[in-house]
Amino acid sequence: MLPPTISWVDDHVELLDQTALPRLRTVSVTTVEGMVDAIRRLVVRGAPALGVAGAMGVALAARTLDGDALADAAARIGAARPTAVNLSVGVRRALAAADGGPDAVLAAALAVRDEDVRSCHAIGERGATLLRELCGGDPLRLHTHCNAGALACVEWGTALGVVRSLHEQGRVAHVVVDETRPVLQGARITTVELAAIGVPHRLVVDGAAGSIIARGLVDAVVVGADRIAANGDVANKVGTYPLALAAARAGIPFVVAAPESTVDTATPDGAAIEIEERDAGEVLGKGLTLPATQAWNPAFDVTPNDLVTAIVTDRRTWRPAG
Amino acid sequence: MLPPTISWVDDHVELLDQTALPRLRTVSVTTVEGMVDAIRRLVVRGAPALGVAGAMGVALAARTLDGDALADAAARIGAARPTAVNLSVGVRRALAAADGGPDAVLAAALAVRDEDVRSCHAIGERGATLLRELCGGDPLRLHTHCNAGALACVEWGTALGVVRSLHEQGRVAHVVVDETRPVLQGARITTVELAAIGVPHRLVVDGAAGSIIARGLVDAVVVGADRIAANGDVANKVGTYPLALAAARAGIPFVVAAPESTVDTATPDGAAIEIEERDAGEVLGKGLTLPATQAWNPAFDVTPNDLVTAIVTDRRTWRPAG
Repeated sequence: MLPPTISWVDDHVELLDQTALPRLRTVSVTTVEGMVDAIRRLVVRGAPALGVAGAMGVALAARTLDGDALADAAARIGAARPTAVNLSVGVRRALAAADGGPDAVLAAALAVRDEDVRSCHAIGERGATLLRELCGGDPLRLHTHCNAGALACVEWGTALGVVRSLHEQGRVAHVVVDETRPVLQGARITTVELAAIGVPHRLVVDGAAGSIIARGLVDAVVVGADRIAANGDVANKVGTYPLALAAARAGIPFVVAAPESTVDTATPDGAAIEIEERDAGEVLGKGLTLPATQAWNPAFDVTPNDLVTAIVTDRRTWRPAG
Repeated sequence: MLPPTISWVDDHVELLDQTALPRLRTVSVTTVEGMVDAIRRLVVRGAPALGVAGAMGVALAARTLDGDALADAAARIGAARPTAVNLSVGVRRALAAADGGPDAVLAAALAVRDEDVRSCHAIGERGATLLRELCGGDPLRLHTHCNAGALACVEWGTALGVVRSLHEQGRVAHVVVDETRPVLQGARITTVELAAIGVPHRLVVDGAAGSIIARGLVDAVVVGADRIAANGDVANKVGTYPLALAAARAGIPFVVAAPESTVDTATPDGAAIEIEERDAGEVLGKGLTLPATQAWNPAFDVTPNDLVTAIVTDRRTWRPAG
């Protein structure tokens, strides 16, 4: 069993430090600045977990602040990362309880957490049912990117929640895991989760994902999402879009698993989603490249809705391509 | 100026150790076993350079061996890596001169080297002309994968030979370089070449390549090849196929630059190309993953001919999609 991703203990937040994985280390967050830093440095990451972290960050702030000062603190937390809509949703939900005082804000944050747990289980069941319908009864060879597992949520996970539900039914042959450069969430986090529940898995470099699919080694792709536009365009960890292209070419399902709260009806399409550009140092490495070399480091990409077979949420199975 | 990729000095071969880049270090190879090891460990890599290395390896062998023993040594060199056709072509050309004695074998190997130099310059000119036709007169934003430069050849390069020729004409705005995991030939080798000739470039993780293209930041993709089947299917470094998918979706040219010797008329199509599976340790890293985690590590992928806008060789511009 892995430690919980995020928990409220006494008067502060405990996070499993995801930058240290596969080594297990927890860190205590007691201030707004600490939470902003933890979010920016990816100590906590994954869209649903960011929603809970944002809400708990506001709960921390509400212990000492109120009024405009609390609203300012909430805004700082919500702006720590721009792409995942869940972060600002979580922050807003906690802040909306501010009139009731710190205990009410904490209760709202814990409600965000509890809802995430329920929602992941519902996504897992619904996704497992869909994939059995799409792919038939044989144990499935699945392919995922980054980490959309328990460690991206509170427990169970979204894309890996689907894998868990299928695995409980004995329906997973293996999972192909993209290492997911530059931060290696696939190599360091998803593999740890799959090992913990005994699911056979194969790690591949991101560049190999397309041809692994083309060679017929995968029955379906299942990934999470950081923001889903109103038209069904999906922002997720950079490297997702090439998977969708390869799945479409191979004629296998490309399924997105995410809580309904990831659907942002205020964003009409993918072009309107702000893509976080992270520090070039994540790509350039130390001593790997010369000073003349610059980098682009977009953290996310957008998969157009016509490449998405289905979006599975806790409430529905949505086929945006119609 | 970078040191030469490969040269014959007195009685042995000098290689620029490409595993040490961006640090510059040369190694001396004096035996067949030394050459096989250098090829396997990627001290020398790149399809055209492997052809020259293979021929020079046979020239080394011919100094002490003849007859069946020489043929055996040549076979060991030719089998050091399976995918690039140039390696076995170079070995065969040197071995064909065996009846003339060691000096004749060396002369044949040096002819393979000289032909590579001429062929790269011809590819560069032809490719530059094609890209100006396809993309118009503005300075081009190009995208490449792995390293198909001077360091993959003897000098000038194939895909980067096209970039060099365009750069001499003042027609390169910048080059997007995929880092090319797991061995990082893009990050460690292509950036060094581009920096040496003053071409602005941006390094990206392999997973970002597709969305960089989708966002309109690239005018054309130009890559090398390790083997081109008779029908125009192209085997190249793993991660090339996703670039071709993204280029096709974006409607930009996907151009392959390689010497005519890379075209293997004995291989009918991509399905017949043996894809080298390299050591899983290149992907799993040290301490990065748990013992339960396994890996697949294909070194190459196959791009179907319908995704290839043109194949530029020293002799022709071939549009395999018709």
